[in-house]
Amino acid sequence: MVNGPLGRKLRMGIIGGGALSFIGKVHRTAAQLDLRAELVAGAFSSDPAKSIAAGRQLALNPARVYATWTEMLDAERRLPADKRIDFVTVATPNDTHFQLAGSALAAGFHVVCDKPMTNGIAEAEQLAEQVARSGRVFLLTHNYTGYPQVRLARQLIESGELGEIQAVRVHYLQGWMRSRPPGQVYPRGNWKYEAGRAGVSGTFGDVGSHAYHLARFVTQIRPTRVSATLRAFSPGGALDDYGVAVLRDDRAIITVTASQVTHGRANDLTLEVDGVLGSLVWRQEQPDELTLMRNGRPRELLTRAGGGADAAERFTRLPPGLPEGFIEAFANLYNAAFDKMAGGQSATFPDERDGVEGVRFIHQVVASSAEQGRWLPL
Amino acid sequence: MVNGPLGRKLRMGIIGGGALSFIGKVHRTAAQLDLRAELVAGAFSSDPAKSIAAGRQLALNPARVYATWTEMLDAERRLPADKRIDFVTVATPNDTHFQLAGSALAAGFHVVCDKPMTNGIAEAEQLAEQVARSGRVFLLTHNYTGYPQVRLARQLIESGELGEIQAVRVHYLQGWMRSRPPGQVYPRGNWKYEAGRAGVSGTFGDVGSHAYHLARFVTQIRPTRVSATLRAFSPGGALDDYGVAVLRDDRAIITVTASQVTHGRANDLTLEVDGVLGSLVWRQEQPDELTLMRNGRPRELLTRAGGGADAAERFTRLPPGLPEGFIEAFANLYNAAFDKMAGGQSATFPDERDGVEGVRFIHQVVASSAEQGRWLPL
Amino acid sequence: MVNGPLGRKLRMGIIGGGALSFIGKVHRTAAQLDLRAELVAGAFSSDPAKSIAAGRQLALNPARVYATWTEMLDAERRLPADKRIDFVTVATPNDTHFQLAGSALAAGFHVVCDKPMTNGIAEAEQLAEQVARSGRVFLLTHNYTGYPQVRLARQLIESGELGEIQAVRVHYLQGWMRSRPPGQVYPRGNWKYEAGRAGVSGTFGDVGSHAYHLARFVTQIRPTRVSATLRAFSPGGALDDYGVAVLRDDRAIITVTASQVTHGRANDLTLEVDGVLGSLVWRQEQPDELTLMRNGRPRELLTRAGGGADAAERFTRLPPGLPEGFIEAFANLYNAAFDKMAGGQSATFPDERDGVEGVRFIHQVVASSAEQGRWLPL
Amino acid sequence: MVNGPLGRKLRMGIIGGGALSFIGKVHRTAAQLDLRAELVAGAFSSDPAKSIAAGRQLALNPARVYATWTEMLDAERRLPADKRIDFVTVATPNDTHFQLAGSALAAGFHVVCDKPMTNGIAEAEQLAEQVARSGRVFLLTHNYTGYPQVRLARQLIESGELGEIQAVRVHYLQGWMRSRPPGQVYPRGNWKYEAGRAGVSGTFGDVGSHAYHLARFVTQIRPTRVSATLRAFSPGGALDDYGVAVLRDDRAIITVTASQVTHGRANDLTLEVDGVLGSLVWRQEQPDELTLMRNGRPRELLTRAGGGADAAERFTRLPPGLPEGFIEAFANLYNAAFDKMAGGQSATFPDERDGVEGVRFIHQVVASSAEQGRWLPL
Repeated sequence: MVNGPLGRKLRMGIIGGGALSFIGKVHRTAAQLDLRAELVAGAFSSDPAKSIAAGRQLALNPARVYATWTEMLDAERRLPADKRIDFVTVATPNDTHFQLAGSALAAGFHVVCDKPMTNGIAEAEQLAEQVARSGRVFLLTHNYTGYPQVRLARQLIESGELGEIQAVRVHYLQGWMRSRPPGQVYPRGNWKYEAGRAGVSGTFGDVGSHAYHLARFVTQIRPTRVSATLRAFSPGGALDDYGVAVLRDDRAIITVTASQVTHGRANDLTLEVDGVLGSLVWRQEQPDELTLMRNGRPRELLTRAGGGADAAERFTRLPPGLPEGFIEAFANLYNAAFDKMAGGQSATFPDERDGVEGVRFIHQVVASSAEQGRWLPL
Repeated sequence: MVNGPLGRKLRMGIIGGGALSFIGKVHRTAAQLDLRAELVAGAFSSDPAKSIAAGRQLALNPARVYATWTEMLDAERRLPADKRIDFVTVATPNDTHFQLAGSALAAGFHVVCDKPMTNGIAEAEQLAEQVARSGRVFLLTHNYTGYPQVRLARQLIESGELGEIQAVRVHYLQGWMRSRPPGQVYPRGNWKYEAGRAGVSGTFGDVGSHAYHLARFVTQIRPTRVSATLRAFSPGGALDDYGVAVLRDDRAIITVTASQVTHGRANDLTLEVDGVLGSLVWRQEQPDELTLMRNGRPRELLTRAGGGADAAERFTRLPPGLPEGFIEAFANLYNAAFDKMAGGQSATFPDERDGVEGVRFIHQVVASSAEQGRWLPL
Repeated sequence: MVNGPLGRKLRMGIIGGGALSFIGKVHRTAAQLDLRAELVAGAFSSDPAKSIAAGRQLALNPARVYATWTEMLDAERRLPADKRIDFVTVATPNDTHFQLAGSALAAGFHVVCDKPMTNGIAEAEQLAEQVARSGRVFLLTHNYTGYPQVRLARQLIESGELGEIQAVRVHYLQGWMRSRPPGQVYPRGNWKYEAGRAGVSGTFGDVGSHAYHLARFVTQIRPTRVSATLRAFSPGGALDDYGVAVLRDDRAIITVTASQVTHGRANDLTLEVDGVLGSLVWRQEQPDELTLMRNGRPRELLTRAGGGADAAERFTRLPPGLPEGFIEAFANLYNAAFDKMAGGQSATFPDERDGVEGVRFIHQVVASSAEQGRWLPL
Repeated sequence: MVNGPLGRKLRMGIIGGGALSFIGKVHRTAAQLDLRAELVAGAFSSDPAKSIAAGRQLALNPARVYATWTEMLDAERRLPADKRIDFVTVATPNDTHFQLAGSALAAGFHVVCDKPMTNGIAEAEQLAEQVARSGRVFLLTHNYTGYPQVRLARQLIESGELGEIQAVRVHYLQGWMRSRPPGQVYPRGNWKYEAGRAGVSGTFGDVGSHAYHLARFVTQIRPTRVSATLRAFSPGGALDDYGVAVLRDDRAIITVTASQVTHGRANDLTLEVDGVLGSLVWRQEQPDELTLMRNGRPRELLTRAGGGADAAERFTRLPPGLPEGFIEAFANLYNAAFDKMAGGQSATFPDERDGVEGVRFIHQVVASSAEQGRWLPL
C-alpha cells in the first residue's frame, strides 16, 4: 500500500494551472490525493484577475492568492517557517519553466515541474546545476513512471528476470490534431504548437519525450546515438506531429514512435521490451496489466494481484481489480518527492538529470531529422 | 467535466473506517477528491483508543476525534451551524448500519451509508421512512453506478437506443475466498462471513447485491420474482460463496451470478444487456469502455472519447485515454449527493429506496434457494 | 501434430448438405482436410434433380450421385468392399436423423451425424442401442470439442490441475434471429424454427445443447437435475430463442445460457470452469487461447505454443500464432472417428451416448421451463 | 462466399515440401481446400528416396512421384493435355526458386512460388520477364494478403474511406530464435539462417518482407527510399534477427519492424495505417477482426459479420464467429490464381512484380543498414 502519512501535511504553492487548465487540476488532485499535502497558495495565471478568481473558486485564503508569481515567491519566503509553502508546482507553458523553476529554487522552495524541464539545452543544464547546489528536491512530472506496473517492469528488468535487454519499442500515439479545425485556436494547450513557446518540437517534445523517458526508466539503458525522421502532416503545421526515432547504445536498439495524427488514439503509450530471457509489454490505457512472455511458458498477465506484483505494492492504493488510473500514478510521483522533501527514503522519481536528458533528446531528434536521419550523439 | 466547486466545502464526519479499513480510506479519498468536502470529524473504531489514534494519524483536530459514535453525533449537533459536520459517512459492518444511519439522521445530518442498507427488511423499510420524513440526503454507496460508461449505458437505454430490454446477464466474480487459509481469521472484512454480522447472505449480500443493483440501475427494469440456487463451497462456510439467481418481470429475464470462489478473478463485475435493437457489454475491470452491438453494424467501443460518450461527460475528470478508476467513480456518487445536499440539481444516485430493494433482494434470494429455487416475489 | 495418413483414404458418402447448405460444405471440407478421406458418393437433397446437380458441381462420378438416400444405401452396399463407401455423413434436418442414421447403420456403414442425434428421447435410445449392436463407429458432430485448447482444458481438469470442479458457466450467444425480417423465410436453416422439424426446442436445441456438451466434455461432470427458464422473444416465435438452465449433481453447479437474440454476437460460445485449485476460461471466437487462473499467480494464457499446450498437440496442424479455426476443429473429430474406423486407437469423440444425453437434456430443459423451472432429473 | 467450382479440378505438381516440411503440407491443404485442385504429381525432396516415400505416403499414383524435379517437368510436359499438371508449386529453399520456377515456366506450367521470389535482384528481374513472356500465371505466396479483413482494409483505403494515407506501422515479431540451442541444428527451416541459402538477410528476408508486402498491398503506397538498422543478436548469428526500416515516398512514412528474438511472440504480424480521415489496425493472430478508428466516433470492430465487411465476402467460407485461419487465407490466394489459370476474372494476388519489389526491398534494407542507415532508393 501507498506511503503513509508524513508528520504534517506539506504546503503547496502553484504557479499556473488556472481555470481552464487540465494539468493544474491534475496537480492539485494528485498532490492532495493521499492527504499528505495541502494547496495553500497560488499564482494561477499571468492575468492577475484570473489568478484571483481561480484562487477564490478553490476557496484558498485570499491573502495567499497572488496576482503574480513574483509576488507569491516574495511573500511566501517571508512567512514563518511553519506557515510558508514547502514546494512550488510549476504548471505553465514550456518556455517559462526555466525562469519559474529557477526562481522558486532561489527562493528556497522544492520544485515540482512539468516536462520538458526547459526549452533549451543550456538552460536545462544550468537549472540542473542550480538544483544540485540548492539541496532542494526537484520532481519532473514524467508521470507515466508512477504506474505500479511500470515500477514492476523496472524491477523485473533490474532483477535480471529478462536477461540483457536488447530491443525496445515504445510509442505514444494520439489523434487529436486530426480534429483541430484548420486555422482555429485550440481551447487550451494551443501554445503547444507555437514554435516559440513549445520549443523546437511539437509532438516529439510533447509525447515523444514521455515515451523516451518511459523506456529509459524501465530499462535503465542509456542510448548514445539517435537517428530520427519527423513529419508535419497537419496543414500549416510548423512543428512535427509524427515521427520515428531509432536510438542505440553499444548493444541495444530502441525505437520511439510518436504521433498526434492517428485517428482514434487517445493516449496510447505502449512499451515493449525484449530481453535475452523474456519480453514484456505494458500499455498506459490498460495500466493495471503487465504482460510477461517467455518462450515455452504461458503468456503471463501480471495484475496488481500477487503473481509477481509485490514489487508494485508501494505504488497501489486499492485491492486488485479495482482500477487505479492516471491520477493515482501522478500522485505516486508526488508521494515519492514528498518522502524526500520530508527527509526520508524515497522511491526513484524523475528529476533534474532526467530533465537534461529529455531536453537533449528532443533537440537531437529534431536535429537528426533535419539532417536526413544522420546519427547524432545523445 | 465533473461538477464544479460548491459555495463552500461540505464538512464530513465518519463512523468506522479506521486504520486497517480499506473502505474507510476509499470514503475519505473519494469524498475529498474534488475538493468539495473536507473530513473534519470521526469516530473511527468501536475501540476508543483506536479511534483516537486514527484521527491523529489523519491530522484531524483532536477535539473532533471522538471515542464513540454517540459522542460524535452529540457533540457535532451542538456545534454552531458553520462548524458542525454536514454529513455522516457510515463505514461499519452491516449489522450496525440501521442504528448508525438512523441516529445520524435523527441528529439532523445527511447520511452516506455502505450497502446493504441494513440486515433486515423491516429495518430497511423503517430507515427509508425515516429518511423520507427527515428531508435529509441519503446516499447508499452502490459505487459501481458512478462509472461514466455505466451512466452512458443507462442513458442509451433510457433514450431507446437499444429498444425494449429483454434479457440481462450480470455477474460479480471474485476469487479471494479460495485463498483464505481454513480456520484462519482474515485480516479485515472477516465479519463479512459471520452470519450474525453480515446478514443472511455471504457472497450474494456482498457482491451479488452490487451486481443486481447495477442491472437495475442501467436498465431500470424492476423484476418481480426471483428463483435462486446458492452454494457454500468453502470448507466450513456458513454462508453462500457462490450462486445464481434468475429474475423476471412480465417480459424480461435477468440472470445474476455471484462468486467469491473463482480463482484469479478480482472484481469481475460484468453487465450484458440485450434489447430488441441492440445489446451492450460493460466490465468494471476495464471501466472506460462500453461495447455497443447492433446486427449488421460494426461492434462499437464507446470510450470516454466522444462517439456517444457525451452522456458520461459530467462523470469524468480527464481527457479520454487517461484512465479513471474506482476512486473517481466512487467520488462521482459523493458529488451527486453533495449537489443535492447543497440544494441544487443532482444526478441520480442510489438512495434509501434502492436500499430497501437491495435488502429484499438478498433475503428473497436466500429464501428461494432454501426452497429449492421456488419463485418468490421481490 | 495431427494424425498421419491411414493405409488408404476412407470413402465418404453424404446424405443432405447440398448446394445452399453451409454444414454440407463444412462436412466435405473437414472430412477431406487431411487427405485421409474422399467424398465419393452423395444423395444431396430430398429433391432428386437438386441432388444430381450438386453431385455434378462437386465433380463426383455421376454413377454415385444418387437421387435419393435409399438408392444410395442400396447401391453402395452392393459395391465391392474396395469400392463402396466406408461411412455415411448425415447432414439433414433434425427430424430425419433417426431414420437416416439407423438406415445407414443397418446397411453396414459407419455414421457421422449432426446433432441432435434425434428429436425424441426414445428414438435416441433406440438408435444408441443399434449402434452398440452394430459395431459401427458413430460420430456425433459436437464439433466444438475438436478445438485443441478444449482438449487441453479437459486434460488439465482430468489431471487434477484445477482440483475438484465446483462451478461451471457456459453460454452460447448468437444474435441472428434479431435480423430475421418478421414473417420472412430465412434462406437456409429455416426448419430450425419449425417445431415439427427442429424438435421441441429452438435455441436450446440448436446451440444450448452444444454449450451443455462442451461443459460435459471438458469437466466430465454428469449433472443429475436441471431447472430451466426459457423465453421466445421473437415476434411469432413458437420455440425458445433465449434461456438459462441451472444444472447440478451432488456438488457442482452448472449454468447454461443460450441466446439467438443477442445483437452483435455471432458464435459466442464461452466456457468458464471453477475448481478448488484453479479456474479456466475458453472462448470459441478466439479458440487458440485458454486462460488459466490460480490465485496468487499471474493469469496464464495457454496458446498452442508450449507452456502446457502439449496436450493439444495431436489436434493441431500449424505452428502457434498461425490461426486454426472451425474447419480444423471439425476435422479433428473426423480424424478421431477415422482412427477408430480404421481399427486403431482414437482420441475421445462425441458418440451415441452423448447423443442420448443431449436429447434428454433438451427435453428436460423444455419440460422444466414449462413447469416454472421445477427441478427435473436429467 | 468463396469462389465456386471451376469446370474441372486443376492438377497440381509440387517440388519440395516433403515429409518434415511445414510449408509443403500447407500448400497441399490450401490448394485442395475448396476442391478446385488436386495434387497429382510431386518431386518432394532433393533425395530421390525421400521423394518416393513422401509420394507413397500421400497415396499419389507412383508413376507420378518423381525422383527429381527435372524428371517431373520432363515427364509431365509429355503427358496429354488432359492428364498433365496445370501448375507447379515451388516449396523449396530460397536459393533454388529462380531455377525451379524458371524451369517450370519454360516447361509451360503455371507457377506458385514461395517468397522471396529469388535471392538476387537480377535473378528476380529476369524471372519476372520470363513470366511476362510466358503468359503463364505466377503466384507468389505472400499469404497474409489472403485474409478477408486484409482485403477489406485494402478496399476501405482504395475507396478513400481513410483519406490520404500518411503513416504506416507494420511489424512481424517472432521469438523462436531465442529457443534455438546454441550450435544446434534446427529440425527444419535451418537453411533459413545460412547466408548462402537464405539470401542476404535472415529475419528481414523471412518475415520482414511479409510485413513490407502487407503494407504495400493494403495501402498501395510505393515507397521510394529506405533507411534501415539491423542487428544480429543471436550468438553466432551471421544474418540479421532484428531490425527496423523506415521507408518513405514524397509524403508518407512507413515503419517496418521485424524480429525473431522477441520472447513469446509467435506470428505477431500487425499493421497500423493512419489516414487523414481515419486509421485502422489489423493483427494476424486475430485475423477476423479489423479495427477502424475515426476521431469523434466509436472505435469500430469490423468482423466478418456485415458492418462493412462485404468487401471481404469473396474471401470467406463460414458464417462470422466461426473462426477462419491461416489455411483459409492461404487457400484464398490459390483460388485467385486458379481463377486466372482458368482464364476468368480473378481477385488481385501477389505476382512476379511483387516478387521483384520484395527482393529489392530485402537487398536495400541490408545495404542501408551496412551503411549506417543511409537512405537508399527502393
